[in-house]
Amino acid sequence: MNDQGLLLVISGPSGCGKDTIISRVLERIGDEGFLSVSMTTRERRGNEVDGVHYYFVSQEEFQKGIEEDRMLEYARYGKNFYGTPVGPVRDLMRAGKTVILNIEVTGGKNVRRLMPDAVEVFVIPPSIAELERRLTGRGTETPEAIRRRMEIAKKELRHACEYDYIVVNDALEDAVDDVLAIIRASKLKTEKSTQKICEVMDYAES
Amino acid sequence: MNDQGLLLVISGPSGCGKDTIISRVLERIGDEGFLSVSMTTRERRGNEVDGVHYYFVSQEEFQKGIEEDRMLEYARYGKNFYGTPVGPVRDLMRAGKTVILNIEVTGGKNVRRLMPDAVEVFVIPPSIAELERRLTGRGTETPEAIRRRMEIAKKELRHACEYDYIVVNDALEDAVDDVLAIIRASKLKTEKSTQKICEVMDYAES
Repeated sequence: MNDQGLLLVISGPSGCGKDTIISRVLERIGDEGFLSVSMTTRERRGNEVDGVHYYFVSQEEFQKGIEEDRMLEYARYGKNFYGTPVGPVRDLMRAGKTVILNIEVTGGKNVRRLMPDAVEVFVIPPSIAELERRLTGRGTETPEAIRRRMEIAKKELRHACEYDYIVVNDALEDAVDDVLAIIRASKLKTEKSTQKICEVMDYAES
Repeated sequence: MNDQGLLLVISGPSGCGKDTIISRVLERIGDEGFLSVSMTTRERRGNEVDGVHYYFVSQEEFQKGIEEDRMLEYARYGKNFYGTPVGPVRDLMRAGKTVILNIEVTGGKNVRRLMPDAVEVFVIPPSIAELERRLTGRGTETPEAIRRRMEIAKKELRHACEYDYIVVNDALEDAVDDVLAIIRASKLKTEKSTQKICEVMDYAES
């Protein structure tokens, strides 16, 4: 099974702008792209739709998913689990789609284990000072919370080198074009093209 | 020495359109890109300029280049040698440029040996039938010459899988955009970005 879709993992510290980059990329690639929906054990809120915002499952179902190696990655925050079930990702990839996974650095490692063909992108801010400026600019967090986010960000940045590509989010549209180029190029990789080569050869043996 | 330029090798059978793709790509990337100039022992013709069309050298000089491992790749046609001297390529890469090498399948292997970071692209026609149609359409060659070119093309296509990327030249502008995406993505590879990461971290240790 070659010539399938593409699994694109995107990580980066809080405040690096990866959510905005992902929405723009999805706008640009249209029907070709999907954002992976996470599974969670937390309560469904107000207008959240199962299968759209999250897959809402019980603790037992989530545990079973972990035991049966059906989670691409997962993490626990407080008493709730959050993770990526592998089934829907594989279905979309089989249909030739580009699936984007917006996950934490720790999740990236597990994805690599289960899906070695995944293409992993780490988004970095132009500088640590700029990251702090952006987090402060949001005006939604206490100085203490920002300080904590900065500590986490510095720790996460040390994992950047485990990723395939580094995108610096200085000018947003450039970063979006960078990710689009990575998607386009990844689909041209020779491993993904054996079927294309066979079609061109179109003569059985010899 | 990271964050250097990029060496892009482009190969593909005669008639696949790689020369046209390369000119368009060079037009699009402007000052950033250079086509590598070959070295040859053949006589200089009419308005050919040394260092522009070829580096014209003596048999002795060429031999010395081979012996001193200063040729990225070379081949002999009749009594003349043609090849790529490594010096100018390295100089351009050190200046952060993208250097394009338009070479034969046999040359690709040697480049891989001397420059393992080179990114190699193989251009294929949409089909063998279409390749034959294009070669015939040129109207410049005898049926016998075309038959021979087709045999060589089929042999070359078997080497496609040794390359990093496969670009199908069906619609020219798509193929050009494919190569541009490969260039852009290759420059974002993590191996090329250690300096970028250090700049962002901008705090010495810890």
